[in-house]
Amino acid sequence: MRMYDLIKKKKQGGELSKDEIEIMIKGYVKGDIPDYQMSALLMAICFQGMTERETADLTIAMAKSGDMVDLTPIEGIKVDKHSTGGVGDKTTLVIAPIVAACGVKVAKMSGRGLGHTGGTIDKLEAIPGMETAIDKARFFHIVNKVGVSVVGQTGNLAPADKKLYALRDVTATVDSIPLIAASIMSKKLAAGSDCIVLDVKTGSGAFMNSLDDSIELARRMVSIGEHAGKDTVAIITDMDIPLGYNIGNSLEVIEAIETLQGNGPQDLTEVSLVLASNMLYLAKKGTIEECETMAKEAISSGKALKKLIEMVEIQGGDSRVIMDTSQFASAPYQYEVKAKTEGYISLMNTEQCGIASMSLGAGRETRDSSIDYTAGIKLIKKTGDYVTEGEVIAILYASNDRLFEKAEQILSKAYSFSEDPVKTRPLLLAKVTANKVEKF
Amino acid sequence: MRMYDLIKKKKQGGELSKDEIEIMIKGYVKGDIPDYQMSALLMAICFQGMTERETADLTIAMAKSGDMVDLTPIEGIKVDKHSTGGVGDKTTLVIAPIVAACGVKVAKMSGRGLGHTGGTIDKLEAIPGMETAIDKARFFHIVNKVGVSVVGQTGNLAPADKKLYALRDVTATVDSIPLIAASIMSKKLAAGSDCIVLDVKTGSGAFMNSLDDSIELARRMVSIGEHAGKDTVAIITDMDIPLGYNIGNSLEVIEAIETLQGNGPQDLTEVSLVLASNMLYLAKKGTIEECETMAKEAISSGKALKKLIEMVEIQGGDSRVIMDTSQFASAPYQYEVKAKTEGYISLMNTEQCGIASMSLGAGRETRDSSIDYTAGIKLIKKTGDYVTEGEVIAILYASNDRLFEKAEQILSKAYSFSEDPVKTRPLLLAKVTANKVEKF
Repeated sequence: MRMYDLIKKKKQGGELSKDEIEIMIKGYVKGDIPDYQMSALLMAICFQGMTERETADLTIAMAKSGDMVDLTPIEGIKVDKHSTGGVGDKTTLVIAPIVAACGVKVAKMSGRGLGHTGGTIDKLEAIPGMETAIDKARFFHIVNKVGVSVVGQTGNLAPADKKLYALRDVTATVDSIPLIAASIMSKKLAAGSDCIVLDVKTGSGAFMNSLDDSIELARRMVSIGEHAGKDTVAIITDMDIPLGYNIGNSLEVIEAIETLQGNGPQDLTEVSLVLASNMLYLAKKGTIEECETMAKEAISSGKALKKLIEMVEIQGGDSRVIMDTSQFASAPYQYEVKAKTEGYISLMNTEQCGIASMSLGAGRETRDSSIDYTAGIKLIKKTGDYVTEGEVIAILYASNDRLFEKAEQILSKAYSFSEDPVKTRPLLLAKVTANKVEKF
Repeated sequence: MRMYDLIKKKKQGGELSKDEIEIMIKGYVKGDIPDYQMSALLMAICFQGMTERETADLTIAMAKSGDMVDLTPIEGIKVDKHSTGGVGDKTTLVIAPIVAACGVKVAKMSGRGLGHTGGTIDKLEAIPGMETAIDKARFFHIVNKVGVSVVGQTGNLAPADKKLYALRDVTATVDSIPLIAASIMSKKLAAGSDCIVLDVKTGSGAFMNSLDDSIELARRMVSIGEHAGKDTVAIITDMDIPLGYNIGNSLEVIEAIETLQGNGPQDLTEVSLVLASNMLYLAKKGTIEECETMAKEAISSGKALKKLIEMVEIQGGDSRVIMDTSQFASAPYQYEVKAKTEGYISLMNTEQCGIASMSLGAGRETRDSSIDYTAGIKLIKKTGDYVTEGEVIAILYASNDRLFEKAEQILSKAYSFSEDPVKTRPLLLAKVTANKVEKF
């Protein structure tokens, strides 16, 4: 097998065999296949696509390129959840405790934020003392004892994905649905859970802007999961509007806690409940309706919040901030962004909201940037709301008041106004399972 | 300008500006742009194509990446000729002396053979003592004195093309018409002639197998020439059948000499005359009919053969072999290939004929292979001819008789037979100028 022949085959619209894909990924990780051949193949894939079988074989080969986490030391069905990334998305902090409180183990590895979207590990580290770099034995011990643990990636998960992603990033070959699906799912397959619930975001703050593309990405990922023998379901949720009101690490933890206390914003609560119920459903805890009731009860009974406290304590965190969120360190500077016009908010460019938050110190521009956990944005008004001129639409938080001017500029541009009332689309847009696509 | 943005633009079907192309080629030759980005762009070009303006700008940037030969020390209009490569194509050895004999200067740089097609420089070096590595000053002196010189490439011509071609060769991005056109024409533009006649081969022994593709390639190359201010014309000629009967270096020189003596095969004579008359026409020697008459007279008067002798002598070659071709060293072994069936030859896979000749020692498998000038094939029968079983269809020549078995196998497979008479297509298929495509 020569890489040249694989490039030529794909260029001409052919289908790569399982063997060809496996040998190729092994050779690439080993360094036998040079970047310039791989980038030519990736570009050919952008034009010719991949069949579902090819995509699944590619994903499995990528997963197998590094450590495959063996979660069998943890008893019961393990359910993972993945979000394709959005702004203000703190669902993991809400869902993981809910699901654990209902008796389903959550052994979750999460990532850090980059660019305009945040990362769960950064958010967790906003809790004083919280450890996220935890070795496998302790990770398993925590999950068995408490029922839930969220940690940073341990071991060498899907190194083929890391290498391929870095190459795609500089060769304009990122926006191929099979390649995106393979990248996400390779890490999920390697992470070892039995079932996977995917939260595919769609809209101006998401990686996929159109609903059709998001459904296609979801379809591909579910197909990969099924090929790999894992029950997989995807929910398509709106990301034309930031989720919840808080953007920024401490601010998002606080909003997640409020949600677990039953006082969270409606949208965050709704998305968290649907994802949690689907996780419980895949773990065979009952019908989807029963699972939803269980999830709601985990909140109303306070059991889910208690699970979060247990997890924080066992991972070395100071649980006093969970019990009293006013104990979180707060930003020394605040700034009110006021509406310059009167009317209904017709649009929010959600990506720009994320960028404004990043510019305040809440996110990383490069992998080496450090994060200010107290920085961020508290949105006061969102799409559909009516505002009068001069009314506060958002509050900015930063450790340096010189950051406000730029952030206000970015955020102001993100809002559009209309004289007429604005109808927003539903938060939950579709559900994709192995057999069907159901639009809500 | 970031290379990333150019890849993305081309991937999305956009048009690269002249500035973008120039900066990109400079950066690539300098090593600032890595191969993995260039190969992604090349693959995107294979799918999205390039406009005529883009192709011309790319070609000019590639030409300017190295030395631009200045032929002004040579008086008069300089006309170059290029063939896209075929099997048995020894036209340069016939045409250059004809054109020079008619008073038009030919300052020609040629290449060596690789794979199944031969190279003019290798053929010339079959003449004992013949020098082809000649510096610029002597090259100009010879052309001014004798009217013609054919030498190997001097200086650093179009290094961008060398680097790009090497990359295309390993990334399955060779077969893009704009890239092929740019590759060929960048060297022609750098070589400094005022006018260019292109011989675009089409058929089983050519780089382009279909007539439509060959016409499109010709159109592109003519357009590039015109963009660069050089009168350019292309003739599309058949390469479904080897040109002439001899394949291999000494054998081809002998056939070229026979053609200059007026005793050459009909097809080689016809192609040589049409190319030579077009060169004379571009050099403004008269109407195309007048130029054809001049070319024929250059043969019948013996003036063209005399020019070849002069050129060989001034380049250090032993002209006795030209005056008496029996003086050429001949291969120690010969082998007759006989027809295994009776009938009309319906097809010859011309590429395979070239490969058979290469396997006898006449060509190079890799850039470092050495060549046996005496090796090759004399075809006795070609497409359309009727043969009886056991009749000799070709004679093989080699310095090692163990090479015959493999060569005979390859050659036998190259021939197909039919019971019915076979009509071959005309040798001259089309003419492409700046304004029109004329199919014959």
